Amino acid sequence: MAEDKLTKRADDFSEWYNQLVLKADLADYAPVRGCMVVKPYGWALWENITAVLDKEFKATGHVNAAFPTLIPMSFFEKEKEHVEGFAPELAVVTHGGGQELEEPLVVRPTSETIIGYMYSKWVKSWRDLPILIVQWGSVLRWELRTKLFLRTAEFYWHEGHTAHASIEEAKEEMYRILDIYERFCLEEAAIPVIKGTKSDTEKFAGAQITTSIEAMMWDKRALQSGTSHYFGQNFAKAFEIQYLDNNNTLQFCETTSWAISSRIIGALIMVHSDDQGLVLPPRLAPIQAVIVPIFKTPEEKIKVMEVAERIFKELKAAGIRIKMDDRDNVSSGFKFNDWEMRGVPVRIEVGPKDVEKESVALARRDRPGREGKSFVPQADLNITVSGLLVEIQDSLLKRATEYRDANIHHPKDYEELKKVIQDGWAFSYWCESRECETKVKEDCKATTRNIPFDQPDEEGICIVCGKPSKRKVYFARAY
Amino acid sequence: MAEDKLTKRADDFSEWYNQLVLKADLADYAPVRGCMVVKPYGWALWENITAVLDKEFKATGHVNAAFPTLIPMSFFEKEKEHVEGFAPELAVVTHGGGQELEEPLVVRPTSETIIGYMYSKWVKSWRDLPILIVQWGSVLRWELRTKLFLRTAEFYWHEGHTAHASIEEAKEEMYRILDIYERFCLEEAAIPVIKGTKSDTEKFAGAQITTSIEAMMWDKRALQSGTSHYFGQNFAKAFEIQYLDNNNTLQFCETTSWAISSRIIGALIMVHSDDQGLVLPPRLAPIQAVIVPIFKTPEEKIKVMEVAERIFKELKAAGIRIKMDDRDNVSSGFKFNDWEMRGVPVRIEVGPKDVEKESVALARRDRPGREGKSFVPQADLNITVSGLLVEIQDSLLKRATEYRDANIHHPKDYEELKKVIQDGWAFSYWCESRECETKVKEDCKATTRNIPFDQPDEEGICIVCGKPSKRKVYFARAY
Repeated sequence: MAEDKLTKRADDFSEWYNQLVLKADLADYAPVRGCMVVKPYGWALWENITAVLDKEFKATGHVNAAFPTLIPMSFFEKEKEHVEGFAPELAVVTHGGGQELEEPLVVRPTSETIIGYMYSKWVKSWRDLPILIVQWGSVLRWELRTKLFLRTAEFYWHEGHTAHASIEEAKEEMYRILDIYERFCLEEAAIPVIKGTKSDTEKFAGAQITTSIEAMMWDKRALQSGTSHYFGQNFAKAFEIQYLDNNNTLQFCETTSWAISSRIIGALIMVHSDDQGLVLPPRLAPIQAVIVPIFKTPEEKIKVMEVAERIFKELKAAGIRIKMDDRDNVSSGFKFNDWEMRGVPVRIEVGPKDVEKESVALARRDRPGREGKSFVPQADLNITVSGLLVEIQDSLLKRATEYRDANIHHPKDYEELKKVIQDGWAFSYWCESRECETKVKEDCKATTRNIPFDQPDEEGICIVCGKPSKRKVYFARAY
Repeated sequence: MAEDKLTKRADDFSEWYNQLVLKADLADYAPVRGCMVVKPYGWALWENITAVLDKEFKATGHVNAAFPTLIPMSFFEKEKEHVEGFAPELAVVTHGGGQELEEPLVVRPTSETIIGYMYSKWVKSWRDLPILIVQWGSVLRWELRTKLFLRTAEFYWHEGHTAHASIEEAKEEMYRILDIYERFCLEEAAIPVIKGTKSDTEKFAGAQITTSIEAMMWDKRALQSGTSHYFGQNFAKAFEIQYLDNNNTLQFCETTSWAISSRIIGALIMVHSDDQGLVLPPRLAPIQAVIVPIFKTPEEKIKVMEVAERIFKELKAAGIRIKMDDRDNVSSGFKFNDWEMRGVPVRIEVGPKDVEKESVALARRDRPGREGKSFVPQADLNITVSGLLVEIQDSLLKRATEYRDANIHHPKDYEELKKVIQDGWAFSYWCESRECETKVKEDCKATTRNIPFDQPDEEGICIVCGKPSKRKVYFARAY
């Protein structure tokens, strides 16, 4: 896989991405148009992502459940904006068990409707609230163009769906989840994100408020990396999710939903990776360190393998996700390239000289070439490697943050905005009118990403129309 | 939920089951005919099941991956027996993105076809083998009658799909997995199972050999609890899964597939549970012990809660999945019934007298009433409870095994078989002809369950036709 080189990232970012996903063995194209196969290496990465998030959700009182994949078409028609948003993307089952169905069923594109229907059956009293359920699985939104992980008809995600007695509590939930998403991105994915509120045009179909985290990719385009929605009573009214409050009065619930999808793997690639292939943050990497034993003669092999195997056991015992590459049909150079392509954070080389000197060579994936190479003692190697993994994790976040910050611009006028947005984000005052938003979209192919919670103290004037503006927004071209 | 009593198990087993699933809060009926919603408590149980199996599969070299939910209809037509078996059960997507599709897509009923297609792309050389992939998810087989967990259109499972270079290795894999399934049932689910080979009529559509584990439910019907199939080259030929062997000759792979589904939750219910509700083996129970604090006055509450909370922390720290029931709107009696209904293995009661005596009352779920109750010191309660959980686990397996063995009959002739099979299994010689199998089915509504690996030393004569027979088979009525 790794012999032939990647297209250079700077030459053709899109082609670089497509090749990398295949060569790093993360995913493949499925025989169904628009769909992907997540290969074992990609799925191991996704499992690490889901394990962290699942733990966070459980720690904050959420529970998992499973709702049907098929949803009656009529359910979508109960919430007007929701059906308008999703109707063009639906995959429809018309036949089952050899017969035409009386009512067509939809392969879920998202589950607000069927979960809302069930909540209306389950919730009776204020004592049943809040209800905090997460579903892990896949959803399907019809899509013919395929970009693995970033744009596929079927994708993987969790969808959280909660119902509450009060507006305050529902909004708190929405923000709590966004904080979990931010923490996940910073601490696990090493991706800096901006938390904020989506504009009316960019919000989820049926939501009153959509909040998001937005990340900058290496090509400076934005990727919405997670969303958390507050629905008010929209879905509660559409599905009659009602409870008796402690005055015995019937009330509608306030609901939320939220998600991070397998797109986040696209973000990991587009933020950290390079011309040698994938670069993964150690905390999420399926393999954190790989041992490559190097020898020529059978005598060397015996000596080298003895040390390599001892190191393997020590590092495994220390909880490091370690791999021994003892393939005998490829060269060491091939192995180096191969594991670089797959983004393993640390490579440990053990050769005859290392055996003599009681040392090993460590190579950092985030700094390819000589710069990232060091020779360290075999003694306490588990401590050395653990420390290096932490250093790489921190270093990736620092690099991505500096890069992002260096490419956020503060244009002084609309002319400058049009220029800077070709190669970065613009952080500008905006009057929050649809007209100005549309103008930017038409002029620059850029959208409002979000209105960040973190705002300057003073007010300003809209960069597009010059009218007074209370809040700044991020404009960027996006995936 | 728990106020109203269950129908008695002995009065109407089917109705008892249906009520129990709902009252124990495991699952609910979905608005789509044939489908279910697995509620948080049921899903927590499923997560415990999947965690054990996932660990076993990974320990034996398997990796997880994800293949599309939708499969082109034409894929099913490539393996003749496979399409015959599944065609009547397919849910068919005919429209996507607002347009009629050129080729209909099927919501996967099982994934041999699409995984076989991908393997044909991935496998090139003997060095790529074996390929050992597991997919966790749901599948859909059209079904109008709904029996939660036992018979639903959509159900949850893992499906393992492996490709090998040799017949021996593929068969070894099939048996290895069956051993994992048996161990899981014995050690985790406390369900004794019989391993064996399915008859030709009962095997999986497209398999050369189907092996199964079969368990006896409380009503003495059999439940196929897991299957492991050897396909020979059937799917390899249909999908051209070929490799170059080390003589550089193109060969077809040998493939297997295997599964345990969410039906196993039905087995847990029907093997262990009773008139008070669910009984769960401690190793799989989402909650292993529940603390019910008992008090009347505010003074008592302070004293009792102090002890209850200390115990909660101690048991949690000891790794016991513990729940504190401090609800203030229901009586202790209600709580007892509620946790009995949900099958929590151990109830810990703490009242004012227990505080004084530095003791607690322990109630075993597997022995309701006075028999299962004991008073033990608060000191070292984590050790006491851990020990009790092990004892309950062992006791459930022992009880189920004795029950099963007591209800396996060895009829001396066909007349006796017809009688015993009304209320048990028959273990009898069978000539392995389809005629005799059909006759038993017509006469007794019983099927051959499997031809167990564990066989008597001598040969015999078929219980139906009297012809010579090499092996005994289990006949039983089944789910």
